[in-house]
Amino acid sequence: MVNYPNAKRVSISKAPRLKTPSIDFANRGMRFETLINDSNSYYLSRNIAVIHKKPTPVQIVKVDYPRRSRAKIVEAYFRQASTTDYSGVYKGYYIDFEAKETRQTSSMPLKNFHAHQIIHMENVLKQQGICFVLLHFSTLQETYLLPAEPLISFYQIDQGGKSMPLSYIREHGFEIPLQSHPSIPYLDVVDKYLIGGN
Amino acid sequence: MVNYPNAKRVSISKAPRLKTPSIDFANRGMRFETLINDSNSYYLSRNIAVIHKKPTPVQIVKVDYPRRSRAKIVEAYFRQASTTDYSGVYKGYYIDFEAKETRQTSSMPLKNFHAHQIIHMENVLKQQGICFVLLHFSTLQETYLLPAEPLISFYQIDQGGKSMPLSYIREHGFEIPLQSHPSIPYLDVVDKYLIGGN
Repeated sequence: MVNYPNAKRVSISKAPRLKTPSIDFANRGMRFETLINDSNSYYLSRNIAVIHKKPTPVQIVKVDYPRRSRAKIVEAYFRQASTTDYSGVYKGYYIDFEAKETRQTSSMPLKNFHAHQIIHMENVLKQQGICFVLLHFSTLQETYLLPAEPLISFYQIDQGGKSMPLSYIREHGFEIPLQSHPSIPYLDVVDKYLIGGN
Repeated sequence: MVNYPNAKRVSISKAPRLKTPSIDFANRGMRFETLINDSNSYYLSRNIAVIHKKPTPVQIVKVDYPRRSRAKIVEAYFRQASTTDYSGVYKGYYIDFEAKETRQTSSMPLKNFHAHQIIHMENVLKQQGICFVLLHFSTLQETYLLPAEPLISFYQIDQGGKSMPLSYIREHGFEIPLQSHPSIPYLDVVDKYLIGGN
């Protein structure tokens, strides 16, 4: 990843929230995201897979050009993502997933999944892509890979209004044992259960 | 695509340049990009493929929260993309490409391809992804699909310092006849020449 040379590396989730000493949802999500990004770097560096997080979608409204060489965005807004956050290629397979984290211990709130993300997952499945979500229960320190099909089925019951019980995730998903290299070896699960099986 | 509700829809390339009446490179690039996006929408709406342009990578430095519900980015900078702009899935195949346009009539400048994009293409090929560039010669009104392999070979001669002659593109690539639906039917070329053949 190439950073803009003169810009400080302040991430979105951290920027305004670092002032509060307590660990909040955003930072917890950030940590899980960091572990996934590290795992993707591991896979990339070993020629195992090419999977990247998409940039945060931003609606740019105003740009200043104080100097010719350096455009400065001075007004922009976060947009909702129309797809999932992660995608790439693994042994010829298209990989597509979203990651969510919760402190809850018995269910995963679905309110963070948007209807158009669910539609995107359906479209990916129609094209024979491999699509899933990584769900992290931070209090339990348990991480699951849940294929898109059972997620979509559950979501459609109530258009994402309900929380998805952990028991449902355990029944239809696969636990990912956290380890060192990579931290979240989700491609092991893809290998064992998703390739050839769908 | 969901836009932030209160933000005006002003695109990056258009924002500062609309004031100049002459059509410049940026707007020309914008038009080609629009045609590709329209083609992708066409493919998506007919369940032919799921291919999206990635969001513009932005390094966010400062965010204001004037109201709880609406974060405003007040300082951010454009970053160089570390991957290609477009990716998705088509009949189970991972599709990955970049698009470039020129007004020149005999060659395509390679300075707009960055070294890390070339490396990304190499990585995608290693994972058996389908990777290429769409090259548009606006003066000639000719568009080509050039597979990543000959692009990489040419790029490595001089680390992107040279322009790639149109004759080379014609020899190693495939012309895409522009039409109405979709405007740039690049998946026809993928079907005929890239699937199964690489």
